[in-house]
Amino acid sequence: MRTRFQQGLDDLRQKLLRMGGLAEQAVDRARQAYIDRDLARCQMVLEGESLINTSEREIDEAAFDLLAMQQPMAVDLRFILAVTKINSDLERVGDQAVNIAERVMDMVEMPTADLPVDIARMGAAVSAMVRRALEAFIEGKAELAQAVLEMDNVVDRMKDDAFIQLVKTMNQRPEVVRQALDALLVARNLERVADHATNIAEDVIFWVQGADVRHNVGAVEEHPEPAPTHEAPTRASGV
Amino acid sequence: MRTRFQQGLDDLRQKLLRMGGLAEQAVDRARQAYIDRDLARCQMVLEGESLINTSEREIDEAAFDLLAMQQPMAVDLRFILAVTKINSDLERVGDQAVNIAERVMDMVEMPTADLPVDIARMGAAVSAMVRRALEAFIEGKAELAQAVLEMDNVVDRMKDDAFIQLVKTMNQRPEVVRQALDALLVARNLERVADHATNIAEDVIFWVQGADVRHNVGAVEEHPEPAPTHEAPTRASGV
Repeated sequence: MRTRFQQGLDDLRQKLLRMGGLAEQAVDRARQAYIDRDLARCQMVLEGESLINTSEREIDEAAFDLLAMQQPMAVDLRFILAVTKINSDLERVGDQAVNIAERVMDMVEMPTADLPVDIARMGAAVSAMVRRALEAFIEGKAELAQAVLEMDNVVDRMKDDAFIQLVKTMNQRPEVVRQALDALLVARNLERVADHATNIAEDVIFWVQGADVRHNVGAVEEHPEPAPTHEAPTRASGV
Repeated sequence: MRTRFQQGLDDLRQKLLRMGGLAEQAVDRARQAYIDRDLARCQMVLEGESLINTSEREIDEAAFDLLAMQQPMAVDLRFILAVTKINSDLERVGDQAVNIAERVMDMVEMPTADLPVDIARMGAAVSAMVRRALEAFIEGKAELAQAVLEMDNVVDRMKDDAFIQLVKTMNQRPEVVRQALDALLVARNLERVADHATNIAEDVIFWVQGADVRHNVGAVEEHPEPAPTHEAPTRASGV
């Protein structure tokens, strides 16, 4: 019974990692679609959305089944709840990628405009945040998660700068107002992705700190093996 | 023990309703602040955010404690998971209200502009969606939740119209480009609030349909009392 539960936790973790991969891929594709004005990539982002939505439901059902299956220990409970929250953030990352793809599709209908915004750089920073938030989850490390929180401030500043510069452009060059608006909205979408990565990092901290607290109170009698180094808490807990 | 759990579920429900009230109030204030260009109301929205954030954490902790306390039955498990999801959407509704308040604070620095967008009407529709989603939760009624999903399409169309009209304005009247942009971003924020209301409605359906499924399989032996009419499933389940 315990083993089946443990297997369930591992499956849940794998499912979430696959979901994370899909969300990360969607952002990367949307970002690249913007840079290359690439409608084919936009289409891939739109088509990928239903797979992300299906994954979200599957993960929620799997989490539900695990909670219904047996009384989880506190650390596992925190893990499962963190997974459901991360799941929901990843789905919203996918939504933002779709929003970006839609902006690109609008943009491509108009002449190219030289705009005072470095979406490629901002997009790279945001993609890195998503990737590191997922790494923090995989490795169960609060320090990695903490680094994501700090990156969020950088992205916020990039978005604010983009906003100021693009509003100026709209004022001075009415002929590119729609292109500037599309770029501004893409910058905002990227900032939202960064916010979701931040949420994910916070959920990792919630989960890991729960595990730390549990270690501190010494409630590990059931699992006397020392936790292997660099293992995620869910596995180190021995469940 | 069972009674303490039941009390815990009732408390959780009350906490979420208070949180819903705060989020609804934040949107109403932000909307009214836009209409009246009222900085004092903006300030109230900004100050209210920390209370909403505190409530979110309290609700998550309460849900966690309930899950840790005892093995919940499927219907209660669905209820608790729905609460954690609704909780997270309500917190984001609060964030959107803050975004709107910030736009209004920007707007008030500039001369009033007559813009082709009816934010008051859109805001009223969105507020109604939040209110009805919470009613659907209080009454545990999938039909009410379904109505919210249908209203979302109306709000999406309003946002698309606002977008088209305001981009035209930006093209034709460069002197009000910043005001038009603020209005456009407020329209987008309102649309996001509507999206969160939609998520809440979906969570209510997930919870209620779980309860229905449970009734269909006849797994109510423990609680032979007939469910009182117009009672929310969590209470009708007899826990």
